[in-house]
Amino acid sequence: MIKSIKKKLVKLGLEWPEQSPEALANYKPVRRSGNLIYTSGNGSMKDGKPLHIGKVGKDVTLEEAYEAARITAVNLLSMVYAEVGSLENVKVIKLLGFVNCTADFFDQPSVIDGASDVLVEILGENGKHARSAIGVYALPLNIPVEIEMIVEITS
Amino acid sequence: MIKSIKKKLVKLGLEWPEQSPEALANYKPVRRSGNLIYTSGNGSMKDGKPLHIGKVGKDVTLEEAYEAARITAVNLLSMVYAEVGSLENVKVIKLLGFVNCTADFFDQPSVIDGASDVLVEILGENGKHARSAIGVYALPLNIPVEIEMIVEITS
Amino acid sequence: MIKSIKKKLVKLGLEWPEQSPEALANYKPVRRSGNLIYTSGNGSMKDGKPLHIGKVGKDVTLEEAYEAARITAVNLLSMVYAEVGSLENVKVIKLLGFVNCTADFFDQPSVIDGASDVLVEILGENGKHARSAIGVYALPLNIPVEIEMIVEITS
Repeated sequence: MIKSIKKKLVKLGLEWPEQSPEALANYKPVRRSGNLIYTSGNGSMKDGKPLHIGKVGKDVTLEEAYEAARITAVNLLSMVYAEVGSLENVKVIKLLGFVNCTADFFDQPSVIDGASDVLVEILGENGKHARSAIGVYALPLNIPVEIEMIVEITS
Repeated sequence: MIKSIKKKLVKLGLEWPEQSPEALANYKPVRRSGNLIYTSGNGSMKDGKPLHIGKVGKDVTLEEAYEAARITAVNLLSMVYAEVGSLENVKVIKLLGFVNCTADFFDQPSVIDGASDVLVEILGENGKHARSAIGVYALPLNIPVEIEMIVEITS
Repeated sequence: MIKSIKKKLVKLGLEWPEQSPEALANYKPVRRSGNLIYTSGNGSMKDGKPLHIGKVGKDVTLEEAYEAARITAVNLLSMVYAEVGSLENVKVIKLLGFVNCTADFFDQPSVIDGASDVLVEILGENGKHARSAIGVYALPLNIPVEIEMIVEITS
């Protein structure tokens, strides 16, 4: 299935990371409890470096932030894949999306849509989820978007 | 039981939404995993429009924000009700409350109390929960309060 | 085991709170659902008062905020201990860390490391977790760090 996902990603203008994002301190990219997997927050990182930098509404456009959220979603899926070795039985449950933005930017949902859209494009009905989208004051490395995810492993 | 809840709400000066809040994009109002239901973030929305707008500490008073949190809690319950068709076996587990506020507003807990109070008024001991209250820089549509909830369906 | 934990804390320059933090309103310090325990958000509180005040990057140094996160982690563990009477079967699953900081502070992870480090120092492999670190605009009582935690009770 991972092959067909990689093909889908190419069509979507995205790529599967060769190396799934790793934790840089005393924590883990994902932690499993029963059939739930909690991911750490991630962004539009590639090879450990952010592809986008700055605040939405000032340094980063809505379109760029939407793209950052798309890449973030792929990274989150790759973190889950690194843990369970498959995405076949993965049902997305919840996203919490943080948008580093200006005080007068009120369209956080359209940014996090980038992640939601990719998850549904890749996983179909299994990709649908509850979510919240929040505007925050600052994010690590000054990235524009950080998202954490909870998935269920069905079986 | 929903009838008695509606009666309670009238006494509390609140109303049950005719239409439970819907998701406007590729996500769902709630997502269930086993006996847990995760809600999407919601605010003091009525018929798809926010009843309150602006930052607490500047545009919105503490009293208004408390009221927004009360209405938000009813909306969140209506989203759960739309999924499970009952609130009898609903035990609230966790709230995460975001308050769109000024930099010198430090009383986020008194705002989110609006939601906590309503949940306990309606559900009694089952309505009690763990929670966090956070001050954020911006929220969708410039609403003052956004809350997400996790409930357990007991049986 | 709690005795050996208290000894470890002394070596780490920390102390176990005589009284676990209590909720001040209609919510609970922790809420259990099945084998998961969700904590409320907490900070570097001692006897109900914050040990640190202000924004990281302005009023509070990175070192002080790291220390605040360490104390917060101990408080969170004490809340779990007050619920289950032991930490032997506690596996940390997830942290969500909020850092009250300036707009140009981008090192939230190094702050929340304070909590992650303590959890691993005390619980070993069981203390490892997924986590997110976010910069927020304001926190209750103007504390610099607030963290919420999910743990699993294994058995």
